[in-house]
Amino acid sequence: MATLCRPAIAVPEHVITREQTLELARELHADHPQLGLALRLISNTGVQTRHLVQPIEDTLRHPGFTTRNALYEAEAKARVPEAALRALAYADLTPRDIDMIVYVSCTGFMMPSMTAWLINTMGFRQETRQLPIAQLGCAAGGAALNRAHDFCTAYPQANVLILCCEFCSLCYQPTDLLVGNLLSNGLFGDAIAAAVVRGQGGRGVRLDHNGSHLVPDTEDWISYAVRDTGFHFMLDKRVPGTMADLAPALRELTELCDWDISGLAFYIVHAGGPRILDDLCTHLKVPQFMVRYSRATLTERGNIASAVIFDALERFFVDGGAGHGAQGLIAGFGPGITAEITLGSWNPAGGLDHVPAHRLTTLPRQSARA
Amino acid sequence: MATLCRPAIAVPEHVITREQTLELARELHADHPQLGLALRLISNTGVQTRHLVQPIEDTLRHPGFTTRNALYEAEAKARVPEAALRALAYADLTPRDIDMIVYVSCTGFMMPSMTAWLINTMGFRQETRQLPIAQLGCAAGGAALNRAHDFCTAYPQANVLILCCEFCSLCYQPTDLLVGNLLSNGLFGDAIAAAVVRGQGGRGVRLDHNGSHLVPDTEDWISYAVRDTGFHFMLDKRVPGTMADLAPALRELTELCDWDISGLAFYIVHAGGPRILDDLCTHLKVPQFMVRYSRATLTERGNIASAVIFDALERFFVDGGAGHGAQGLIAGFGPGITAEITLGSWNPAGGLDHVPAHRLTTLPRQSARA
Repeated sequence: MATLCRPAIAVPEHVITREQTLELARELHADHPQLGLALRLISNTGVQTRHLVQPIEDTLRHPGFTTRNALYEAEAKARVPEAALRALAYADLTPRDIDMIVYVSCTGFMMPSMTAWLINTMGFRQETRQLPIAQLGCAAGGAALNRAHDFCTAYPQANVLILCCEFCSLCYQPTDLLVGNLLSNGLFGDAIAAAVVRGQGGRGVRLDHNGSHLVPDTEDWISYAVRDTGFHFMLDKRVPGTMADLAPALRELTELCDWDISGLAFYIVHAGGPRILDDLCTHLKVPQFMVRYSRATLTERGNIASAVIFDALERFFVDGGAGHGAQGLIAGFGPGITAEITLGSWNPAGGLDHVPAHRLTTLPRQSARA
Repeated sequence: MATLCRPAIAVPEHVITREQTLELARELHADHPQLGLALRLISNTGVQTRHLVQPIEDTLRHPGFTTRNALYEAEAKARVPEAALRALAYADLTPRDIDMIVYVSCTGFMMPSMTAWLINTMGFRQETRQLPIAQLGCAAGGAALNRAHDFCTAYPQANVLILCCEFCSLCYQPTDLLVGNLLSNGLFGDAIAAAVVRGQGGRGVRLDHNGSHLVPDTEDWISYAVRDTGFHFMLDKRVPGTMADLAPALRELTELCDWDISGLAFYIVHAGGPRILDDLCTHLKVPQFMVRYSRATLTERGNIASAVIFDALERFFVDGGAGHGAQGLIAGFGPGITAEITLGSWNPAGGLDHVPAHRLTTLPRQSARA
């Protein structure tokens, strides 16, 4: 069965603290009628530090979309290979063992995709499948994991490399001045995550089931206008309340698999903001302590988009994981509003276990019960 | 086994002929030092008509990236559902039977992806998997088909809806004046393709194997700069010669599967331009007649990017397909340079055939032999 191995995380060298963020907001938006609210919202995120690909002075300039996207490309090429090699080493594999690369980013756009450059540069085989995903935002890390799981279910001897490269600071838009924009400017950070899903062998999270869920008619809650000036992120004030809609979806998938959502051994969820974590615990009747890895990611790195779940996972791995076979949940949330949900079990041994025949043929259809 | 059912194609109502294209090129570029070459290249494409989402007068204006992308969204929402419903009807399914939507486009960019809007609008289930692909260009139709095949291999009872929405005319850049740009302006057209891959049942092309191939160090042959003014397509003069590199890759995959690439019953390949079709026949020792469906697509619609292979396939279906079990090849080519290759057999009966066990576990690894 497919196993998600230990992720490798890389954060850029420029750091901005919570105090610097608040001070900047005060300076830049001294006349803003809702400055007080914006400062409170930023404080409430709990974010203490964020990493940026450029010094803050350069981050605050908008040199145009052309320059920004070129910068994305240069920074991605300079930083992604090291994280990829580390993730491969954690999985005890080399580039030639990889059958598919899923490259995820909502903060820069390239065609040909980075996958072509990586294959040419890092020694992946020419027949490596390329799956670039640009339009699932913060949910794309979960989507990458679930599509990798599907691929290894189809081809149990396959290995998939997932790469999330999110330079959110390159989407800073100085002229976007809604309170939601000011909050975003104090919430998002830059990071790269890499992780391997091995079809056989590997130590980590054995992938048991996956599912997706779209909350109806919430398309405009998180959106991303594409304009002459680049990507304009919009975070609606309804977003923090999303868990009221998503928690039942998480519960439904676990019930379909006869798992108890309130009694799992680990919860690795998207730390979009503090209330998402708070509400999730309330709705699922889980103590706050259980989302400590996601909380640590948010505190130390901010919301790093699709890389959040892998950063939180890496903390779980470093912390020793869980008991053999202990069940847990991984969930990415993003625009749509979409949840990408993974159910997995901790497998510290890395043994080659057999694939129960029924698992190959079961695609839970929630609606069949609804 | 997974079966690709009859595709549905939709082309917009505005038409530009070869004569109008040549006349426009003469008018707009009267002083261009290489006008003669550009006119010859456009003539040599063999394209007779192309369809556009706007009248040609509006197509030639560049109202800015913001407006263009908004236009993409409006036109996609107005046109995609009808094609999707037709493809579902061909597959004898409804939206509620679909487990994954693969939405492909390299000519407009939205987040949330069109998949969210389609699920909200057309009655797909909330747990439908969303897979938007924006960065594989003309190869993305083949990639969508292959990932749909993989998904149905993992979950044999699943059904996948593929949607390709390519409004190439919205990427027209009046200030790009290289000969390659002038040729592109006379080559690309707009179209929508929809097709269902059924995990079980269905009449059409039974999907046997799939593979991907990247030609080393050809990233800059087809590229797509992302700038303030939108997507800038660049077609290098080396592209028409690509078949010298790709034909061996097609041959290698068929040989790994013990198929004879020169003796297949159908060849549905990307009609990027006339020389790609000519060269493919030469390299594979196949008569020109065998690529007639791709040629007809090119002649009547121009290069419609990721939708080409589905438009050619639809002609093959309408023409009656092939003998039961007759083997054929489907291949999309695009930036990278990447080929997405599918090997399939004509299955007119639509019976529920058994899945040979070895097919579930075989992922051909070309390098293992190399």
